[in-house]
Amino acid sequence: MLDTPDPADLPARIAILGGTGKLGGGLARRWAAAGVQVTIGSRDGERAENRAFELAEGLPPGAAELTGGTNVAAADAAAAVVVAVPYDGAAALVTGLAGSLAGKLVVSAVNPLGFDAAGPHPLAVEGFGSAAEQLAAAAPDGRWTAALHSVSSVTLTDLDAPLDDDVLVAGDDESALSEARTVVAALGVRPVVVGPLRLAGTLEALTAVLIAVNKRHRTHAGVRLTGL
Amino acid sequence: MLDTPDPADLPARIAILGGTGKLGGGLARRWAAAGVQVTIGSRDGERAENRAFELAEGLPPGAAELTGGTNVAAADAAAAVVVAVPYDGAAALVTGLAGSLAGKLVVSAVNPLGFDAAGPHPLAVEGFGSAAEQLAAAAPDGRWTAALHSVSSVTLTDLDAPLDDDVLVAGDDESALSEARTVVAALGVRPVVVGPLRLAGTLEALTAVLIAVNKRHRTHAGVRLTGL
Repeated sequence: MLDTPDPADLPARIAILGGTGKLGGGLARRWAAAGVQVTIGSRDGERAENRAFELAEGLPPGAAELTGGTNVAAADAAAAVVVAVPYDGAAALVTGLAGSLAGKLVVSAVNPLGFDAAGPHPLAVEGFGSAAEQLAAAAPDGRWTAALHSVSSVTLTDLDAPLDDDVLVAGDDESALSEARTVVAALGVRPVVVGPLRLAGTLEALTAVLIAVNKRHRTHAGVRLTGL
Repeated sequence: MLDTPDPADLPARIAILGGTGKLGGGLARRWAAAGVQVTIGSRDGERAENRAFELAEGLPPGAAELTGGTNVAAADAAAAVVVAVPYDGAAALVTGLAGSLAGKLVVSAVNPLGFDAAGPHPLAVEGFGSAAEQLAAAAPDGRWTAALHSVSSVTLTDLDAPLDDDVLVAGDDESALSEARTVVAALGVRPVVVGPLRLAGTLEALTAVLIAVNKRHRTHAGVRLTGL
């Protein structure tokens, strides 16, 4: 029922802002293994370079280059940009990179979550329904989508681990959604476009639910839609 | 990884407020077929009686009684109550039934959703994170849980249709969660407790995402968690 993503949409290079984090590292390994060049970005370019070196270890023959740099250098070098930084500080980072993101596919994987004695819970984003919409407003010339909120970094990092999750994708721009599907499919997961960017808040909040499920049931839960 | 729900927790009779609606009807048929007595409630008791008569048609031998009545009569007669009314008016209804709900398992399946040209979207619930928490505040002596937000009424109503969805369940009271799991499992779906009632807002919002997926991909999508 879902048509196949078009490999021609695959960008030559993907930048991962916050690529030194767990999710960013898992994504970098999967994309590099699939033959897509990756630059992981960090506030500290040298830290990103060192981390890229570690992440490239054990990649299969034929894997693409996996490099590191500052967030701005990574964004400038890439055709598509994934925002995988913590919610706190994400808007300031994206505001500063607005020029570098212009015209590019941008995927927000940012989760506005809080944690307290009762576990994880979604945070309200002041003035917006989601972090993705807040970030899109901060860099309005990017071609924004929201995805990759809750795919397990543990599973991504282990290239042999099977991925049976779906990645739910939200966005307003159909060509960006098409590119995002291709980028997501290259990880080995099934992308499912759910609808406009205003639904991103639910995808972000779902991460809190999955973390709560992980704690309660001691697992790495993911989500899969039935009926597709 | 999930322990089996305890059939001893199954209530003798379940009331479904708003049982003349599509979801309520599907639930009523599945529970009656599973041998649990059901009373569907409506503002108009005669309408509920007529609807119960229709719903009981074609139930298998051994099915339990499926009756109809006013919402208050239904709630009074049952040991467990499902709130399956539209969001608009739900709080007023529940406030009026607070006495009837006291001490009982109550399952909110209420979805605060809006629809416009861009499709379905979650509605903010003023002063609360979810409809379930709003309703729980309106009838604080009920033993509240939230579940059954997005199971397909089409699939429920056709007793031969396979149900491969999970039903995500939120709640603060462990004994109520245990009973809710048993009640949900009797439908033939897998109940997954996600955590406290404050996560109900995400379960409610997820219904908007699933309806959007249904429209975009012309299907009846459900959700299933991987890793359990």
